[in-house]
Amino acid sequence: MLSERSTESLTMSPTTVAISEALPPLQHQYSAVRQLSETLCRPLEIEDYGIQSMADVSPPKWHLAHTTWFFETFLLCPFLKNYNVFHPKYSYLFNSYYEAVGNRHPRAQRGLLSRPTVAEVYQYRAYVDDAMRSLFSSVPLSAEMTALITLGLHHEQQHQELLLTDIKHIFATNPLRPAYRPAAPKTALAATAPPLRFVEFSGGLHTIGHQQSGFAFDNESPAHRVYLQDFALASRLVTNGEYLEFIEAGGYEKPEYWLSEGWATVQAQRWTAPLYWEQIDGQWWEMTLMGMQPLNLAQPVCHVSLFEADAFANWCDRRLPTEAEWEIAAAGMPVVGNLLEGDRLHPQPAKDSQPVEQLYGDVWEWTQSAYQPYPGFRPAAGAVGEYNGKFMCNQTVLRGGSCATPPGHIRASYRNFFPASTRWQFSGIRLAV
Amino acid sequence: MLSERSTESLTMSPTTVAISEALPPLQHQYSAVRQLSETLCRPLEIEDYGIQSMADVSPPKWHLAHTTWFFETFLLCPFLKNYNVFHPKYSYLFNSYYEAVGNRHPRAQRGLLSRPTVAEVYQYRAYVDDAMRSLFSSVPLSAEMTALITLGLHHEQQHQELLLTDIKHIFATNPLRPAYRPAAPKTALAATAPPLRFVEFSGGLHTIGHQQSGFAFDNESPAHRVYLQDFALASRLVTNGEYLEFIEAGGYEKPEYWLSEGWATVQAQRWTAPLYWEQIDGQWWEMTLMGMQPLNLAQPVCHVSLFEADAFANWCDRRLPTEAEWEIAAAGMPVVGNLLEGDRLHPQPAKDSQPVEQLYGDVWEWTQSAYQPYPGFRPAAGAVGEYNGKFMCNQTVLRGGSCATPPGHIRASYRNFFPASTRWQFSGIRLAV
Amino acid sequence: MLSERSTESLTMSPTTVAISEALPPLQHQYSAVRQLSETLCRPLEIEDYGIQSMADVSPPKWHLAHTTWFFETFLLCPFLKNYNVFHPKYSYLFNSYYEAVGNRHPRAQRGLLSRPTVAEVYQYRAYVDDAMRSLFSSVPLSAEMTALITLGLHHEQQHQELLLTDIKHIFATNPLRPAYRPAAPKTALAATAPPLRFVEFSGGLHTIGHQQSGFAFDNESPAHRVYLQDFALASRLVTNGEYLEFIEAGGYEKPEYWLSEGWATVQAQRWTAPLYWEQIDGQWWEMTLMGMQPLNLAQPVCHVSLFEADAFANWCDRRLPTEAEWEIAAAGMPVVGNLLEGDRLHPQPAKDSQPVEQLYGDVWEWTQSAYQPYPGFRPAAGAVGEYNGKFMCNQTVLRGGSCATPPGHIRASYRNFFPASTRWQFSGIRLAV
Amino acid sequence: MLSERSTESLTMSPTTVAISEALPPLQHQYSAVRQLSETLCRPLEIEDYGIQSMADVSPPKWHLAHTTWFFETFLLCPFLKNYNVFHPKYSYLFNSYYEAVGNRHPRAQRGLLSRPTVAEVYQYRAYVDDAMRSLFSSVPLSAEMTALITLGLHHEQQHQELLLTDIKHIFATNPLRPAYRPAAPKTALAATAPPLRFVEFSGGLHTIGHQQSGFAFDNESPAHRVYLQDFALASRLVTNGEYLEFIEAGGYEKPEYWLSEGWATVQAQRWTAPLYWEQIDGQWWEMTLMGMQPLNLAQPVCHVSLFEADAFANWCDRRLPTEAEWEIAAAGMPVVGNLLEGDRLHPQPAKDSQPVEQLYGDVWEWTQSAYQPYPGFRPAAGAVGEYNGKFMCNQTVLRGGSCATPPGHIRASYRNFFPASTRWQFSGIRLAV
Repeated sequence: MLSERSTESLTMSPTTVAISEALPPLQHQYSAVRQLSETLCRPLEIEDYGIQSMADVSPPKWHLAHTTWFFETFLLCPFLKNYNVFHPKYSYLFNSYYEAVGNRHPRAQRGLLSRPTVAEVYQYRAYVDDAMRSLFSSVPLSAEMTALITLGLHHEQQHQELLLTDIKHIFATNPLRPAYRPAAPKTALAATAPPLRFVEFSGGLHTIGHQQSGFAFDNESPAHRVYLQDFALASRLVTNGEYLEFIEAGGYEKPEYWLSEGWATVQAQRWTAPLYWEQIDGQWWEMTLMGMQPLNLAQPVCHVSLFEADAFANWCDRRLPTEAEWEIAAAGMPVVGNLLEGDRLHPQPAKDSQPVEQLYGDVWEWTQSAYQPYPGFRPAAGAVGEYNGKFMCNQTVLRGGSCATPPGHIRASYRNFFPASTRWQFSGIRLAV
Repeated sequence: MLSERSTESLTMSPTTVAISEALPPLQHQYSAVRQLSETLCRPLEIEDYGIQSMADVSPPKWHLAHTTWFFETFLLCPFLKNYNVFHPKYSYLFNSYYEAVGNRHPRAQRGLLSRPTVAEVYQYRAYVDDAMRSLFSSVPLSAEMTALITLGLHHEQQHQELLLTDIKHIFATNPLRPAYRPAAPKTALAATAPPLRFVEFSGGLHTIGHQQSGFAFDNESPAHRVYLQDFALASRLVTNGEYLEFIEAGGYEKPEYWLSEGWATVQAQRWTAPLYWEQIDGQWWEMTLMGMQPLNLAQPVCHVSLFEADAFANWCDRRLPTEAEWEIAAAGMPVVGNLLEGDRLHPQPAKDSQPVEQLYGDVWEWTQSAYQPYPGFRPAAGAVGEYNGKFMCNQTVLRGGSCATPPGHIRASYRNFFPASTRWQFSGIRLAV
Repeated sequence: MLSERSTESLTMSPTTVAISEALPPLQHQYSAVRQLSETLCRPLEIEDYGIQSMADVSPPKWHLAHTTWFFETFLLCPFLKNYNVFHPKYSYLFNSYYEAVGNRHPRAQRGLLSRPTVAEVYQYRAYVDDAMRSLFSSVPLSAEMTALITLGLHHEQQHQELLLTDIKHIFATNPLRPAYRPAAPKTALAATAPPLRFVEFSGGLHTIGHQQSGFAFDNESPAHRVYLQDFALASRLVTNGEYLEFIEAGGYEKPEYWLSEGWATVQAQRWTAPLYWEQIDGQWWEMTLMGMQPLNLAQPVCHVSLFEADAFANWCDRRLPTEAEWEIAAAGMPVVGNLLEGDRLHPQPAKDSQPVEQLYGDVWEWTQSAYQPYPGFRPAAGAVGEYNGKFMCNQTVLRGGSCATPPGHIRASYRNFFPASTRWQFSGIRLAV
Repeated sequence: MLSERSTESLTMSPTTVAISEALPPLQHQYSAVRQLSETLCRPLEIEDYGIQSMADVSPPKWHLAHTTWFFETFLLCPFLKNYNVFHPKYSYLFNSYYEAVGNRHPRAQRGLLSRPTVAEVYQYRAYVDDAMRSLFSSVPLSAEMTALITLGLHHEQQHQELLLTDIKHIFATNPLRPAYRPAAPKTALAATAPPLRFVEFSGGLHTIGHQQSGFAFDNESPAHRVYLQDFALASRLVTNGEYLEFIEAGGYEKPEYWLSEGWATVQAQRWTAPLYWEQIDGQWWEMTLMGMQPLNLAQPVCHVSLFEADAFANWCDRRLPTEAEWEIAAAGMPVVGNLLEGDRLHPQPAKDSQPVEQLYGDVWEWTQSAYQPYPGFRPAAGAVGEYNGKFMCNQTVLRGGSCATPPGHIRASYRNFFPASTRWQFSGIRLAV
C-alpha cells in the first residue's frame, strides 16, 4: 500500500493544476499550498497523525489544523461577513503562540488529543477552504487581506517543512523504525564528495536584507548596510565522511572544541553522533524518511546542532560563516538546489557543479550569528506582529533551506532560526575562514 | 454512530455464547474474556487507541497487545510446538514490568507509538487466539498450563478495568470532553442516599485470606489468623453530598485533617475536589464515561485518593477500615453489586437494601492497610512471580471491586493496591469506627 | 585541637552532674539532655554548623535552635508569665513541621541561613534555659506541663541522634572527608563475627505496644493483642562481610531480589554498595565519624535502605522480621548494647554473648512492617498531635536504636520510622525466618 | 561591631599603601588587588562565608580561594621552582570551569563545604601571596608571566564585584535581611531625576574594540570597523520611578511587551517587580547592601533582567542600544562615575552634569547585542583560552560597570555578559532610539 502512495507526486495532479491555474494568482497559490499539506500527509496511517514524540514536535494533525486556524482567525473572522467558526473550541486547541488571540492548549500536550479525529480535521480544512473561496469571490481583496493571505501561505509552507521533520522524528522514536516512503532503487551514488575548497569574497560595505519585490518576512527588513572583513566560504557542505573523522578523533569526548553550553549538553544528553545516526554491529546507519539506511559518506552531514557544527569547525580550525557573509555569497545565485520539489527528501552529495554549491537546499546551514533585529526593525502591527520579533533572543540563524523546503519558500535574505541545541531539523554545516 | 455502538451489550452476543459454551470450560472462559476486551473498545475511534494521557495510563491499543503478549510469552512460546512469534519486536514493546523476560519500552513512552496500528494489534490478537485454539486442541493441558491460562485471563480482566479507567482519563484530559457512550435517558434517581448507620462486628480471632476453591492471586495467600478488636463499618459508601460538605467546610484548606504527605500533595497538585469534578458557573459537574454530568449528590463519591479518603474520615471523626475488617464483614456476603456486567459504568446510590451494602462494586474502597505480604507469603515461581510480590511497598490496599470490575473477577479476599495519591481508579470511601 | 576536644565525655562533667543531681528529677533530666546537645557539637568548627548536605539533613545549628524553639513554643509562651520570645522571626525559622503553629522556612533552604550566627543560637539556648529555670521554680508543674517537658526532652534526644547522622553526612559529602573525632588507637577487633543462628519463638496471641510506666510516644499505644505464627530471629546482625558476598554475587545487578521501587531506585541512584562505602584502588573503605576507615568485615552492615535490607534477605532466602516479632523477642531483654553512652559512634562486632544479641544499639533494624496506627490509636491533642500520626503513610518501622541513640531513649516498644529509601541513618539488617 | 568595621575604607590603609608603592608597579598592583578582596569580606561573620544562596552565587570563601587557585595554577606551579601546592585537593575544589585543568567540584555544591574553614582559606591566600612574592623577586618576569599575572588580577577584580553581588543575594535570601553595612545617615537625596533627553550620534563607519595600550580581555579584540545607522542615546539611566510607572501600567501582566522567552520566565518565576523590591503594607522597599531601604524613585532601576529591560523599552516605544552604539558614545568620555571606589555600593540619582551621564558606574547597562566573537577573534592559547570564548552563546552584552566595579576595571571596550534572565547583578536600563 505504501508503494502505491509513494508514486504520488508532491505537487498537485495535472487535473488539479489545470483547474487551479485558471484562478487569480493568489487564489491559485492558495489552492496549491493548501493541497500540498494534504499531499504530504498521504503516506500516513491515521495513528501517525496524533503523535507528539517530543515537545518541539507537533502531531501532523495539529499542523493541518493550526495552518487552517490561521486563515480562520486572521481572514475569515474579521473579513468574511456572517462567517461562523467551525467549532468554538478550535481556537483554544489550535492557536500556537499568539498571546493576543487568547489562551491556548499547552504546547507539550498536543499529543494527548485523540479528538478532533483526523477526519474532522480534514472537514475543518474543507470548511475553511470553502469559506476562503467565498472570500476570494465575494469581495475585492484589500492590501491588508492580500498581505495576510500571503503571510498565511508562507506560514503554511513553514509548517510543511515541519510536517516532514516531525514525521521523521515520530518514526525515528518508534523502535519499529517505520519508513515514510520506500527507498528508491539504489542508483550509483557518488562514493566520495568533490574536494573542499575555500572561495574568497571581498569585504567592505555591503547591503543585506530584503530589497526586492516579492514576499519576505518582517525579520528580513529593513535592508541595511554592513561592513565586513574579507572572508572565504567552503565550496560545499561538510559530509558525513568528514564528520565521522571528527567523531573518530574523539570529537565528542574533548571539551576543548565545544562551547561551554554545548559541552554541558553533550554530557547531559550523552550525544555521541548526529541525531539519527545509529551504530549497529559496528556499522553506521542513519534513520531517514525512507527508513533506516547505511550511512552514505558522501552526503552532507545532517541533524546536527549549532553546538556540533561549531565544535566541528573548531576541530578543523575553521569557523562558521556569519549570516551576512552567507547572504552576500548567495545573493547573486539562482535559487536552485535539492529542495522539496526535487522530491529526494534527503540531502544529496555535492557535484562540483559551480564554485560555491549547495547554498540552497539539502540542509539549513548554521551560521555563527545570533538571531537579532536588523537596525530599524519594527514587527508587523497586530497579532501577526508576534510572528518573528518576540523570538529574537537565544536563537541562532540558519540559512539556505533544505531538502524539505517547499517551492518558492526560500531566498537569499531568508532568516530561519532555532535554539543552538536543535537537531531534528535538516541542519548541517558549511565552513568559513 | 455512537448510539448504535452503545446498544451493544458488554458481554458476548447470543451467537458467540452459543458457540463458546460448547467448548471446554477454560477455553470457553478464554473466549469470553478475550472477546470482552474487544467489545469494550468498540466505542473508540482509531485515534483514541493511542493516547497516554499520563504516565499511569496506557493507550487502549497497548492494553489489547500486552494482554495478548502475556499468552504468547507464557503459554505459546514454551508450550506450543513450532510456534513463531507474531513480530520479533513485540516482546520489547508490550512487556509491562517483567524483568525476567527482558528489556522493554519505557512505560512513559507508550503513547509515542503510532505503529503497530490498531488494525495490526487486532491481527496480533487474532493470531494469538488462533494459536491458543491450537494449544487447547493439540495437547492435554498440564496443571501448570491451566494455572497460567487462568492467570492470564484474570490478568486480562484487570486490564479490562484499566481500559475503562484509562479511557475515562483520556477523554477527561481532552478539552472537548468526549463521551465514551451517550448518557442513558434520565430516570428518576434517588435524590438522597439512605441514612448512614454503623454496623457492629465482633473482634477476636478470625481467619482471612483465600480459603476456598477457585482462582486467587498469590497475594491472597496463605490464609491466616488475625486478632481484631471489635469494630463497626458504615452501612453504605460516602456520598458526593457528604463529600461536598467536607469541601465546603474548608477540608482542602486545613492541614489538620491530612497526612503529612497528603497535605504536601494537595499543595503541590492544587487539589480542591475529587479528580473529575469541575465547577462551572457555580455549579458542580462531574466527568463520567457518559460525558459531563451534573453532580449527583446521592451517588458515592469517586476518584478520590487515599489521602482524601483519610482526610474526610478525620474530618468526621471516623476512620477507614483495615483490610481484615473489610474482609470479615464481606466474607459471608453474596458477590453482587454494581459491577461491570450491570453496565452502568458509574457508581450508583445506595438503596438501603441490606445492613451493609455496596461492599461489592460501585467503587474500590480504600482501607487503612498498607499492602504487605501475608505471613508465610511466597511469590509464584518464575517470571509470573513478579506479578504481585515486588509491589509490596508504599502501596495501600483497596477492596471490593467497582462498577468497572468484570464478571467473576472479585471476591472477599481480593486485594487491589495503588499508591496513596492515586485518583484515576474508581476509588471511594467507606467509614469505620 | 580536635584531639583535645575528643577527650571530652559525651555526658556531663562531674561538676555539672553534681549541681544537676541536686535538682528535682525532671529539671535534672532537662539540664542533662540540654547539655548533651551542646557537648555533641563541641568538635565542630563554626563552619560545620550551617551545612545542609541534602534535604533530609538539617544544619547542626538548626537542630540546636529547633529543639529550643520547642520549649519556647510549647512551654514558655503558654505557661511562663510575661515571657518575651527571644526573637520574633525565630518561630518562622525554627518550626519544623507544625502546621498548627504557623508558616515556616522551607525545609530544603535551612542551609541558606548564615544568620542567626552560631553564637546567637547558643545565646538563644541560654535564654530559653534560663526561662525554663524560672518556670521550674516559679510554678508547680501541672501534669500537662510535665508531659510537654518530657516530650520536649525526648524530642531533643531524637535530634541528638540526627545531629550525629547529619554531621556524618555533611563530612562524607565533603571531598576532604574530615573526621568528627580521631579514630581510637587500633585495638584487636574481632576478625570474624560469631556464626549466625536462628532462634525460635512461639507464635499465638501476644501483646505489643507500650504497657509499662515511663515515657512513650503516642504511636506506641494502645497496647493490643496480635496473633503471630511461630517465627525465628537471627542471633545477630548481618555483617559487612556477609553483605559484601551479596555485592560480589551481583546483588545490585539482578532485579529478581528487589522490590520494584527498590530496583528503580538502584537504577536511578546508581547504588552499588551501602551509602558510605568507597572502593579505592580495589580496597573497600567506609566513611565513619572517625573519618575514612578500612571496611571491617565483622562489623554489622550499616547505612542500608529498606530496599537493600529486603533484597539481601531475598538473596539468602530469608526475610525481615515484622515489628511485632521483633518486639516480642526484645520485650524480656535488658536494654543494653552499643548505644551513644558507650561512645563508640559506630556499630561493633557481635560477641556471641547471648542467644539473640545486638537487639539494642549498633544499628536500627529494618522490619518488614509499614508504619501504621495501632488499633485504637489517637494522636495527642493540640499541635503536638502532629508529632507522629501524620507520618503514618509510606514509611517503614525500624526497631532497637543504634550507636547514636542517647541514654534512656530506647525501649522494646519504640517505633522509629523512615521512608524505604533512607540510608543516612545508622540502619542495618536482622534476618528472620 | 558592624559600625566599627564600616568605617574602614575599601582601599588599603595609608601604611599598606606606603609599603606597597615602593614595589614595582605590577607587584604593587598585585598587593592592592589581593588586599581589596579581603577588605571587602571584613564585614562578614564566619557563617556568611559559606553560603550559596542559588546556583549562580558562590560562597565568599570560594571566591577568596578560587582567585588564589588561579595564581597557584597558572603562575606558581609552572614558573616557581620547587613550589609545593598548599593542599592537593584544592585544585579539585576551587577550579571553576577550566576543563583543561581537570575535574572539579560541581558548581551547585559549593555551599556544601564547611571545610576548608575560613581561617584555612586565609592561610591559603597568605601562602600563595608569599610564594608570589618569591616569584616576583626570584626571576625576571617573562612577557607570558606578566600577562598571566595581569589576567589573574583582572580576574580577581571580577570576583570582587561578584563577592558583593553574591553577599547581597545571600543576605536578601535570609528572612532576617541582614545588612552588609549600616546605612549612611540620610542626606538630602535628589527627589526627582533630571529630565530624560535623547542625545544624537552620527552613524557611518566607526571602529570598536580594544585599540589602546593597557590590559583588555581577549573578547575585546580585534578592533574592527562597523557600519552604524544614526542613533540617539538617553541622557541618563531609567529610574525606579519610571520603572514603577511600567509596573503600575500592568507591565508584568501584558505579554505584548515581552520577548517570548521573557514572558515564559515572568510566568514561571512569578516576577512582578525587580529582584530586590518588596511591597510591605502598600509601600515599596528595596533590599540593599545597607539592608532594607524605602524605594528611592530618583535612583536608577537596578537588578532587572534583559527581559525586563527590553519589555520596559517596548512599553515606552524605545529600544535598548547595541553594544557598538554604546561604545561609540562612551569612547571619548573620561572613566568616572559611581564605581566601587566611591564606596556608595548602590546606584545614585543622575545630576544632569553632562549631555550623556552615568555611562560608567551605577549599573551595568543591558544592550540588545548577543555576546558574539568579533571578526577575527581568537581565544588566548592554553587553559586561559577558556576564559571568554566558550561562553559566546545565549548570553547578552552589558556595558559600563556598576557601583560594585573595582578601580581600574572598566573601559569603553569592556564587554560584560550574562544570560538574559540574570537579575542578581547590578544591571539596569539605558534607552536608545
